Amino acid sequence: MQELIAKLSQMEGTHSPFENAVRELPIQVCRVFLDEKGRIRPAAFRETDCAVRCKNPERMAEIFPKTTAGHGYCVLEAFSSELPSKVTGKRVAVLFSGGPAAGGHNVIAGLKAALGRGNTLLGVKQGPKGLINGALFEITTESIQARLNTGGFDFLGTDRTKIKTPQQFEKVKDTVLRNKLDGLVIVGGDDSNTNAAYIAEYLEEQGIKCSVIGIPKTIDGDLAVGAHLPISFGYDTATKIYSELVGNLTQDAASAVKYYHFVKLMGRTASKITLEVALQTRPAVALISEEIAEKNMSLDDIVDHIVRVITERRLKGINHGVILVPEGLIEFIPEMRTLIQELNSVLGEYEKDIRDLPTLKNKQEFIYPLLSPQSAQLMASLPEDIEEMLILDRDDHGNVKVSQIETERLLIEKIRYKMSEVKRHPDKFFGQGPGKINATPEQIEKIQGTALSVQSHFLGYEGRSAKPTSFDASFTFNLGLTAGSLVLSGKSGYMAAVTEFYRGGKVLALPLAGLITVEMRKGKEEMVIEKSLVSLDSPAFKAFAQNRDKWAAEDRFNSPGPIQHWGPISRQLPLCVALDQDYPDFRDFELGEEHRITSEEL
Amino acid sequence: MQELIAKLSQMEGTHSPFENAVRELPIQVCRVFLDEKGRIRPAAFRETDCAVRCKNPERMAEIFPKTTAGHGYCVLEAFSSELPSKVTGKRVAVLFSGGPAAGGHNVIAGLKAALGRGNTLLGVKQGPKGLINGALFEITTESIQARLNTGGFDFLGTDRTKIKTPQQFEKVKDTVLRNKLDGLVIVGGDDSNTNAAYIAEYLEEQGIKCSVIGIPKTIDGDLAVGAHLPISFGYDTATKIYSELVGNLTQDAASAVKYYHFVKLMGRTASKITLEVALQTRPAVALISEEIAEKNMSLDDIVDHIVRVITERRLKGINHGVILVPEGLIEFIPEMRTLIQELNSVLGEYEKDIRDLPTLKNKQEFIYPLLSPQSAQLMASLPEDIEEMLILDRDDHGNVKVSQIETERLLIEKIRYKMSEVKRHPDKFFGQGPGKINATPEQIEKIQGTALSVQSHFLGYEGRSAKPTSFDASFTFNLGLTAGSLVLSGKSGYMAAVTEFYRGGKVLALPLAGLITVEMRKGKEEMVIEKSLVSLDSPAFKAFAQNRDKWAAEDRFNSPGPIQHWGPISRQLPLCVALDQDYPDFRDFELGEEHRITSEEL
Repeated sequence: MQELIAKLSQMEGTHSPFENAVRELPIQVCRVFLDEKGRIRPAAFRETDCAVRCKNPERMAEIFPKTTAGHGYCVLEAFSSELPSKVTGKRVAVLFSGGPAAGGHNVIAGLKAALGRGNTLLGVKQGPKGLINGALFEITTESIQARLNTGGFDFLGTDRTKIKTPQQFEKVKDTVLRNKLDGLVIVGGDDSNTNAAYIAEYLEEQGIKCSVIGIPKTIDGDLAVGAHLPISFGYDTATKIYSELVGNLTQDAASAVKYYHFVKLMGRTASKITLEVALQTRPAVALISEEIAEKNMSLDDIVDHIVRVITERRLKGINHGVILVPEGLIEFIPEMRTLIQELNSVLGEYEKDIRDLPTLKNKQEFIYPLLSPQSAQLMASLPEDIEEMLILDRDDHGNVKVSQIETERLLIEKIRYKMSEVKRHPDKFFGQGPGKINATPEQIEKIQGTALSVQSHFLGYEGRSAKPTSFDASFTFNLGLTAGSLVLSGKSGYMAAVTEFYRGGKVLALPLAGLITVEMRKGKEEMVIEKSLVSLDSPAFKAFAQNRDKWAAEDRFNSPGPIQHWGPISRQLPLCVALDQDYPDFRDFELGEEHRITSEEL
Repeated sequence: MQELIAKLSQMEGTHSPFENAVRELPIQVCRVFLDEKGRIRPAAFRETDCAVRCKNPERMAEIFPKTTAGHGYCVLEAFSSELPSKVTGKRVAVLFSGGPAAGGHNVIAGLKAALGRGNTLLGVKQGPKGLINGALFEITTESIQARLNTGGFDFLGTDRTKIKTPQQFEKVKDTVLRNKLDGLVIVGGDDSNTNAAYIAEYLEEQGIKCSVIGIPKTIDGDLAVGAHLPISFGYDTATKIYSELVGNLTQDAASAVKYYHFVKLMGRTASKITLEVALQTRPAVALISEEIAEKNMSLDDIVDHIVRVITERRLKGINHGVILVPEGLIEFIPEMRTLIQELNSVLGEYEKDIRDLPTLKNKQEFIYPLLSPQSAQLMASLPEDIEEMLILDRDDHGNVKVSQIETERLLIEKIRYKMSEVKRHPDKFFGQGPGKINATPEQIEKIQGTALSVQSHFLGYEGRSAKPTSFDASFTFNLGLTAGSLVLSGKSGYMAAVTEFYRGGKVLALPLAGLITVEMRKGKEEMVIEKSLVSLDSPAFKAFAQNRDKWAAEDRFNSPGPIQHWGPISRQLPLCVALDQDYPDFRDFELGEEHRITSEEL
């Protein structure tokens, strides 16, 4: 025992056996980054015949005159050249922005490999905040090698500061000048990449030669640019972890035969995570926010659908299942969105009056008449505590904290109520005729006794900082190589992109300004990179829509299992990506050559 | 895309690529089950010089006269012999009881392999209920081969019926006779194995020759018999899944640097799951129920400890972490246990009066005077909703639903309150002197502003029906071989056991009656197999206790990663088991020969 306890103490503060092993795993390196001898080197870039689809080209040209000048939103493609590897003496900084995603450390490793020993890589502590405060440190070969293939953003840290004010831009400029930066790489989501576009423009306008490059990160998968960038990094790892767990829950439901598991899945806006997990696990029900919005479904429509599925399964003797709910659902239900908008304006206008009213009842009496009849009716139909939360919890801007609404609990409570209705008035629900469920009196009698036992789960944080899958590990390393190459080529205002994950791999640079569109928020213009949502015409959604009724009718669940880093099934792409990109398979992706990264290369 | 959608449809209702691959994985088979040619065959059993430590031998001899006759609780050991493989024409039934655990399907595969083609294996549907109703079906080679190494109990189903009444025993007898059973294998936890002992005795007393064998299953790990049976099956898989997720959360906490994640871990009684996960991930705090009970800690002691850890980390600039809470904590806090006992008797005695009181306030006014001052004070200190739940939610016996108490929420609310106290009266907590935290006024000033952001999680169901780890897959297959061999040797009233997981593997049979002890519950005798709890003298607990202060002081977290079924780290034992069994390492366990199971063997 002393022997083993000693071993454990040696391990203290070091990596686990797993982490030590994954650091040795090879990575697929895109061929443009390999010389004839198969050694890593940065690539050069040339213009292609293809431009990104910019929705407001003129407006963007006004806002980003410098960075858009000349190239007309042209997509750049990498090609193999030894020129960039001759560039030396450059100083490049990298930062993480927003929530963690698997593969961040490999982005840095790729950057370091692209810059080589002749240039310097600096890390910015705590994201944009650190950039403003000038908290930079040099990244050594040893420190990044120790983190190769590991998860988390803990090497640099991250935060959500948005660089907006002139003062903030001033401070960024100071940091760039004080550290003599020739390049700045921002790893983040749509907001952070929009920010990158502004910083690139600002620095050029200030006559400072510093390449600003964005790297597409978000587990939600809503930062994607069609065939140019099928997905952002972190999505594959997160969805595989959620699929492992949901797969286990489907199997557990079918084993214990008494629970419905309601699983809320991370993703504030797009339902891409839910769609991927549904394709991987085949649950009884999976709600897709984009479909609910497009079909203008009401909260009751959704509840009715689920109650119908549960009831029809009961008639078959199945009293268990798994139901997937996307985190962002509420705001995609048109009537809820309207209610929240009305509430925000009412609560904004009468904030003090409402605050002064003693009881919730008083507040309700005050608010209801100020809402539209539909919204008042909807609000009255919500569970008491949800209503209370809508009225009392406000964010810093005085708005309803939509993200705080426990969507799955809201659904469960309304489903319970609806089920009790089915019990009280079976004739309303069973029998012949449109929308009615066909069942014999004996069947109805038989199922009326069964109780609805529910377990609810929220899967999110578990999937953000995991070790990257083999795909995310390779994808991110190549994104880092791409960003480093772009800096060495003196390009600025681009987002690094890797595509064609099957039989090849292709390296691109997308002009950030071309990805930005104008959105009207509360009456004023806001520049944003449009979120990539689930399209109901996409092959991935169609594959789901074609099969979901079978999955609802009876157990067809599937267990994809835990992420494997070794063995026959360690190279799977997200099903959504394989389907939407029209790949022949989702197994055995190929981004380039299998390559074991050596310390000489970092 | 059609190509891939077609592939997906083919996969409909079949296994995932992962499941197809794991079915091909080899299993370690204990050498006593292999003949000279390395083919699987059942083993024979002989008595050892060792008996199990029976606490009430005389009482057990009274209750189990038949099954205890002669052998004095002697442990049997398997030895290699071709005799049992000559036995043919036997009919054996197997059932699952209680919650799922990883490896159940491999128990059946092992049983089938032991019985060979000459005997018949039947599956009992829906656990003990199915045994009473006589719901049996024959298990074919194809059906079990398709489930080799897969998770879940869905092949047979399970339930929690306890076989108690004479009528139930009668029906079991009918099932045994009608199906001409020579053997009955019950896969379950402490209750189910106690049940197995009673059924064995009953059938023998009825003059029915049917071997009843128990198999130790429970993810909680609280069914264990020292060196004879270091652990029950399912524990390794469940703790590895929870460790993967907690490891990810520690990494996420250190990346996002703003959350404390409170993770409640399944385990109604023992904290063995929490202890293993703590050793694997090194969180800031891990509560061990057994320690809290033994040290007679109060709820406030626990809260004070956590607040102290959080505060001292803040002084170092660390404002994040992970805190592990065992599901069964509440009942191990002596003062809470007393309060619940008092509440149960008061609520029992005055049920109607209390029900008739209109408001919660009235009920409180009625109940408080009937409690001891200490309990009344404690109850008054609990959050309103928890108090309400204690008074209003009762189980079928009218008792407080302890399992429903949201322990982690209770802790979080009390911690928040305590933190606000620290803020209001810093002098009480900081400064010189015993128990005070040493900090400069500037430091105190600096941390007082920081808010406590909390995320709470419950990990349980995700870990019960997963694919078994390589250890659980081998362990369960050998337990099945053991049970099958015992039936063919005509032994009854034993629990199958495999031990010495390192460099060998040893196969035993433990007399069930000898494991049972008398417990007084509500004044009357109850026969139970004593739960195996965390011992504060155990090497595993000591290893935890030796290191936890370091883990509390600063981030020392560890990410064990997802379960690997291929590659260099796919053969790890639970750390707790390796430490307590004094193995030189927890990697590369060895139960026997690597063996790929063929259809001929099933």
